[in-house]
Amino acid sequence: MDQHPALRRKDFEALDAGDPLRPFRARFALPQGLIYFNGNSLGALPRDTSARLARLVEQEWGQDLVRGWNAHGWVDLPQRLGDKIGRLIGALPGETIVADSTSVNLFKVLAMALQLRPQRRVILSERSNFPADLYIAEGLVELLGGRHELRLVEPDEVEAAIDDSVAVVMLTHVNYRSGQMHDLKRLTAKAHAAGALALWDLAHSAGAVPLALAEAGADFAVGCGYKFLNGGPGAPAFLYIAEQHQAQVRTPLSGWFGHLRPFAFDTGYVPAAGVTRALAGTPSIIAMTALEVGVDLMLEADMALIREKSLRQAELFMQLFDMQLSRHGFELVSPREATQRGSQVCLSHAQGWPIMRALHQHGVIGDFRAPDVLRFGFCPLYLGYTEIWDAVAALAGIMHSGEWQRAEYQQAVKVT
Amino acid sequence: MDQHPALRRKDFEALDAGDPLRPFRARFALPQGLIYFNGNSLGALPRDTSARLARLVEQEWGQDLVRGWNAHGWVDLPQRLGDKIGRLIGALPGETIVADSTSVNLFKVLAMALQLRPQRRVILSERSNFPADLYIAEGLVELLGGRHELRLVEPDEVEAAIDDSVAVVMLTHVNYRSGQMHDLKRLTAKAHAAGALALWDLAHSAGAVPLALAEAGADFAVGCGYKFLNGGPGAPAFLYIAEQHQAQVRTPLSGWFGHLRPFAFDTGYVPAAGVTRALAGTPSIIAMTALEVGVDLMLEADMALIREKSLRQAELFMQLFDMQLSRHGFELVSPREATQRGSQVCLSHAQGWPIMRALHQHGVIGDFRAPDVLRFGFCPLYLGYTEIWDAVAALAGIMHSGEWQRAEYQQAVKVT
Repeated sequence: MDQHPALRRKDFEALDAGDPLRPFRARFALPQGLIYFNGNSLGALPRDTSARLARLVEQEWGQDLVRGWNAHGWVDLPQRLGDKIGRLIGALPGETIVADSTSVNLFKVLAMALQLRPQRRVILSERSNFPADLYIAEGLVELLGGRHELRLVEPDEVEAAIDDSVAVVMLTHVNYRSGQMHDLKRLTAKAHAAGALALWDLAHSAGAVPLALAEAGADFAVGCGYKFLNGGPGAPAFLYIAEQHQAQVRTPLSGWFGHLRPFAFDTGYVPAAGVTRALAGTPSIIAMTALEVGVDLMLEADMALIREKSLRQAELFMQLFDMQLSRHGFELVSPREATQRGSQVCLSHAQGWPIMRALHQHGVIGDFRAPDVLRFGFCPLYLGYTEIWDAVAALAGIMHSGEWQRAEYQQAVKVT
Repeated sequence: MDQHPALRRKDFEALDAGDPLRPFRARFALPQGLIYFNGNSLGALPRDTSARLARLVEQEWGQDLVRGWNAHGWVDLPQRLGDKIGRLIGALPGETIVADSTSVNLFKVLAMALQLRPQRRVILSERSNFPADLYIAEGLVELLGGRHELRLVEPDEVEAAIDDSVAVVMLTHVNYRSGQMHDLKRLTAKAHAAGALALWDLAHSAGAVPLALAEAGADFAVGCGYKFLNGGPGAPAFLYIAEQHQAQVRTPLSGWFGHLRPFAFDTGYVPAAGVTRALAGTPSIIAMTALEVGVDLMLEADMALIREKSLRQAELFMQLFDMQLSRHGFELVSPREATQRGSQVCLSHAQGWPIMRALHQHGVIGDFRAPDVLRFGFCPLYLGYTEIWDAVAALAGIMHSGEWQRAEYQQAVKVT
């Protein structure tokens, strides 16, 4: 039974008209007629990015060449951009840095966490964590001689599993598949109460939900530049180390950019002060500069407004799901409860892959996560309310017409 | 005494006029009037880079968004670009991949080398190796519990120090400071004869000197994208794993891009086939695309011609040094013998820092490596012969006039 009052397209149009974030849409170069729910996989292109990259390449690199490292502040871009991201995640200045990829950063901070708890052997995580995070933990455990255990539990078992064998609780704040969001503050406190550390992967959180890492006392975090921060394909990642740990930890990837005096070319490794010690090799200035444009744009917006719009969009999406989709064999994967959900709504359907392919043909881009999940991410800076109406209408139409059954949509799953 | 026949500027002009590589200079966007000897630190900007990046950003990312991973082949760019670099270093197809930074890649392949020699404990390197390489080795040794030893010797002691305690000989082919070049083939054979493996850092070799890694039987290598490959500031690096080792090694940085099926989101890590297993996190497509332009340009040139010109330029530079500079307290740091030298000539001078600063004011860009080395790198694709004459004339002029003694040049050493 439909429990919701009837919704009409013009209600969504009215929401767009009154949306305080609406002006941000024009700051992105989105293709005409495309409805994009994949900003949680690859964020859209900020209009300023291209000109900024052209200036970097033609002027800073082309004209100033190696002198750009000082003349244009490339040499401390990891710190400067890190602090900007720090504002988005509630870190103190000097706690966040941009470097490498999320995976490589996770390797570093996980190794650091284990250093701080030398008597403990357990890395606690959830089985449904982003697999890449578990791969990295596996690799580190193997490298350290197998003395540690990667203990995996179900999401709702995490809290009870935190005991005094646990060195570090390593969780992704918002689950990549379900959109389920952990209570970062409570689990961090719970970890600390058991003498463990808390390490958070913010890949689906930074720029999507308000965060207060320092207030929550989080110990370590990593996150992604190419999703909600709109840094471009494969943008550099960031990492966070709580101030009180910085002097005690050493990076396993002791590269020269993390050295106290990288350009003195000393023989022995001496870690830089602060979070800088988590840098490894020479960072890509081109990639970081593209990311900076996305982060600067995000900093212009009010994170509370972003969250408010994201939740309203998700709520409306779920209402439309109830009205138009649930009868077609879709199930809701994401939590109904707003406080337990990030900025995406996921559905499952046994025929999810051909359905998503058909939806792409209608100009609606969500993504598919094997075996059966259709993901719809909400990026409130550029996603409109009316687009949600239109996307669900397209999806319902595909189910009514049965067009997803066409042979062309039945091919084997490919990378998305 | 001057042993050389008199050289005149018009001899250099004639060499430029007859230079088969001269057309390449127009393919780079060099500033008017600048003489650039720092391509071994940061290579110059290829003219095509800006348009290629604009297309990537505006069309591929902006219009195709997440679909770009398949539509534009981003997903296998690390392999495709790796194979292009493989042609420059004499690797077989499937042995080279682009990923991360040189430091991070060194960490991976050094860990792999140690896996292949589990009974041996020594990493043999030279004390004057690029410090960052030694830092990475230090960090890995520490992470592995201190069971290994990083044994450092002088360059001319390396060969004698290879014994059956050595797991891996880790050397930089061309020394960053002196330009001294090891005999890669002979030292690799020597390592193998002792049951050890050979790992080469090609930062100052790739794109600068002809390389034949596969023929030499090199086991592992890493190298840099932002020097002679002209990939832009902090460009991604590459790594090479000889085919016969690929199935036996596991990366310590077991990220999802090195997984057999990254997008199946399996729980356990299963390494991809071949060199792909050395990938870690999501690679920067923007940074790699810039690098690809530089590599494509390099592939248009004949590596033998590049080497021939580089050696002739160095020879002339040293002749001018003998004629005009040696009397002013400069000493030659680089080997005279061509077969023992990469693509740079380095001088030392007790007042090297203020002298180099004064030289910059004359539009001649070399760099300074503490405490006393002035580096002049030769990038034959864009450096002309006449520029060498003019640069040495400027340097001699600075010494005659004593202008390097001005207060403005006496400030403390900064990053260059």
